[in-house]
Amino acid sequence: MAHSDVLVIGAGFSGLQAARLLSDTFDVRVLEARERPGGRALAHAFANGDTVDLGGQWVGPGQDRFYALIEAVGARTYPLWSEGDHLVALDGRLRRYRGTIPSLPIHVLLDLNRLLGRFEAMAKQLDPARPWAHPKAEDWDRQTVGEFMARTGLTARAREMFAIAIGAVFCAEPHELSLLHALFYARAGRSLDALISVEGGAQQDRVHGDMGGLARLMADSLGGAVTYEAPVQALRWSDAGVTVETPAGEFSARRAILALPPNQALGIRFDPPLPAARDALWRRMPAGACIKCVAQYERPFWREAGLSGQSVGGPGPVRVTFDNTEAGREAGQLLGFIEGDEARIWSGRDPAERRAAVLESFAAVFGDAARHPADYADQDWMAEPYTRGCYAAFMGPGVWTTLGRALRDPIGPVHVAGTETAREGYGYFEGALEAAQRAADEVRAALSP
Amino acid sequence: MAHSDVLVIGAGFSGLQAARLLSDTFDVRVLEARERPGGRALAHAFANGDTVDLGGQWVGPGQDRFYALIEAVGARTYPLWSEGDHLVALDGRLRRYRGTIPSLPIHVLLDLNRLLGRFEAMAKQLDPARPWAHPKAEDWDRQTVGEFMARTGLTARAREMFAIAIGAVFCAEPHELSLLHALFYARAGRSLDALISVEGGAQQDRVHGDMGGLARLMADSLGGAVTYEAPVQALRWSDAGVTVETPAGEFSARRAILALPPNQALGIRFDPPLPAARDALWRRMPAGACIKCVAQYERPFWREAGLSGQSVGGPGPVRVTFDNTEAGREAGQLLGFIEGDEARIWSGRDPAERRAAVLESFAAVFGDAARHPADYADQDWMAEPYTRGCYAAFMGPGVWTTLGRALRDPIGPVHVAGTETAREGYGYFEGALEAAQRAADEVRAALSP
Repeated sequence: MAHSDVLVIGAGFSGLQAARLLSDTFDVRVLEARERPGGRALAHAFANGDTVDLGGQWVGPGQDRFYALIEAVGARTYPLWSEGDHLVALDGRLRRYRGTIPSLPIHVLLDLNRLLGRFEAMAKQLDPARPWAHPKAEDWDRQTVGEFMARTGLTARAREMFAIAIGAVFCAEPHELSLLHALFYARAGRSLDALISVEGGAQQDRVHGDMGGLARLMADSLGGAVTYEAPVQALRWSDAGVTVETPAGEFSARRAILALPPNQALGIRFDPPLPAARDALWRRMPAGACIKCVAQYERPFWREAGLSGQSVGGPGPVRVTFDNTEAGREAGQLLGFIEGDEARIWSGRDPAERRAAVLESFAAVFGDAARHPADYADQDWMAEPYTRGCYAAFMGPGVWTTLGRALRDPIGPVHVAGTETAREGYGYFEGALEAAQRAADEVRAALSP
Repeated sequence: MAHSDVLVIGAGFSGLQAARLLSDTFDVRVLEARERPGGRALAHAFANGDTVDLGGQWVGPGQDRFYALIEAVGARTYPLWSEGDHLVALDGRLRRYRGTIPSLPIHVLLDLNRLLGRFEAMAKQLDPARPWAHPKAEDWDRQTVGEFMARTGLTARAREMFAIAIGAVFCAEPHELSLLHALFYARAGRSLDALISVEGGAQQDRVHGDMGGLARLMADSLGGAVTYEAPVQALRWSDAGVTVETPAGEFSARRAILALPPNQALGIRFDPPLPAARDALWRRMPAGACIKCVAQYERPFWREAGLSGQSVGGPGPVRVTFDNTEAGREAGQLLGFIEGDEARIWSGRDPAERRAAVLESFAAVFGDAARHPADYADQDWMAEPYTRGCYAAFMGPGVWTTLGRALRDPIGPVHVAGTETAREGYGYFEGALEAAQRAADEVRAALSP
């Protein structure tokens, strides 16, 4: 049996970062289920050699830990292409606009502004470290975002636009989400506006190369400390330490950091069994439903029409698009997301049928040329056995205020990381890094003489 | 490796019944994680030798399969004690009543009747085999029961009474539950009225001895076909059959029946991995939160005051009680449930503190004598590693209409049973038996030449 000071379970950004933070002082071993690092970051190579991220790909203002990491491993960022007009497709019409808020009839715009304004005003009041502590927390937690929308939005179109924004952020439908969770999430990511924005927001910058490459740089910086194809199947613990079973053998350590999404953590047999509250919490944290779709074209033809490649609305299944063209490359990339209910529908279908539907969505907004890509790739994160949904786990009504307090508590010598335990940047790489720092601090304090 | 025609995973009522149905023709092996059969049926012996069910315990009209089973194994039923007045505790006052509906101010009663009436009228329209097929299914599925209550109930007291009924049936809070799921559940159990009633309802009869004993009789009828302490950790399948790994060895068969609650089924590593829709469905089916509490007294002292032992309301944590005195025994038993949010709160607390709080709840309704039991037992089903919640798994908003169609589909040669796949009696032993029959029929059809 291999022994170390610290075992890190999961080589996503949170686990890798925790290992980096601790490996100066401690002997750290990282166990990863897959044959690759990165977790929800995954690079794909098109036939022409261009790469594309089929997982998380963005970094934006306020994500200071992430920018610092990118610099530390010697990577560089560039802004997402955002020149030209955006498009909004509503009621069979296409309208051009600039900025974050689509051009809509004035009464719809006013209504949408009220919806967004109310939401932001509530979110601002929360302490993201303790969302359950707000005086209205219980009230907000017992409502779904759908209820909030129905009560606050007066026009169907404003509600539809708000629902698209929610879908784009959570990959979940408004009626699935606790209002308190959505408010917390926005607060932890600065604001809902920041989360849906490109310039000045969470979709502002990308990394040269790709996020998968960034994860590999992180893993490389740990020398040979990462063991791949070692999914942890069982974990025994006592005050003395931790022993885990994997197909690659048994590993033991004085402390462990569990850096997995909640649904994956549930796949580990704990001995002694998980405390009831933790088990109940993780069982109530399903991940969003998302299929990320990228079509590659000879050139970014929409730019010639003065379009940014960003669009919202349309008949679906894709209702949000971006110009994802790699900096300095000739071929254009259109990126679209299938989210929430639509993702569940399209998850089970034939890949060729899905590709055709995605290209139809693109064509509905960008015209016939979108039907003929040079290459295409998509990634259904729900079908990935070691992920089972993206971008992140969410909470339905009633979970935060009754079980949320357990979210970051260690389980004996097992500390928890992962973006789903973050107080800042929950659901983002930034959150993965914030959680890594907290968990690493906990372990350092526990192991210091 | 041991080979059989059929592997049944789980020796709860559904698994045992499926094995009984198939063992005339096929070689059947049942694998059970625990050292006992029965699943969510569990007997406990008090110090004086009386027994009590700390799990499911009732059978009532309409549960024909269950009555037939009881007769088939030679057991007998007796009615729950129900003579005398019931009590409702509201606003610090105790009121006596008879029947199902508590005595309340007339405007509250009318309001409660409207709430119940609307609910029953909607439930009646559903096909419990296909709740998603109703024209309003999507609308109802996007609402929580809490939303329905808020919109339909005009008085806070009627809403409170309705919430207690929902809590008693689902061990979940109204805002956690999809309205469609609650309607389906009521329909699958005949009606909400039937589910909350004693005489003529789901709490009408008990079994002499206990349900744990009944499960043992079922297991005994299978000869040595049950292997205990064999939790299935991994399951490989192909069209040719199934192989499972357990700490008690490997087992293979031509077909398998998975008779576990969804959260336990998720603990098995499937190879090939679960289809995305099934995984997403099971991850969105947490079980209710319930602690079952029974105090034993020298005699059923409340009967002397003309009380039935049935009560509803009060300061909590117990808000529903029954006279659980075993037929023909001298000692009295008061049974109380801690449900939903309260169960989550009390799950983590010290057992002595919990006992004291339960006895205070009993005393608030039945007087000081309730503070001094001869014996006491409770069972926190959330803390049970092989159960993790009772009575059954439920669905939050949006699950039935987007993922529910996968609920009963086989996974290759793996058929699914368990009360959570039932079309009749979902959540009850009756449902376990109905699902067993369906799954056994599927296997028989598949294995017939």
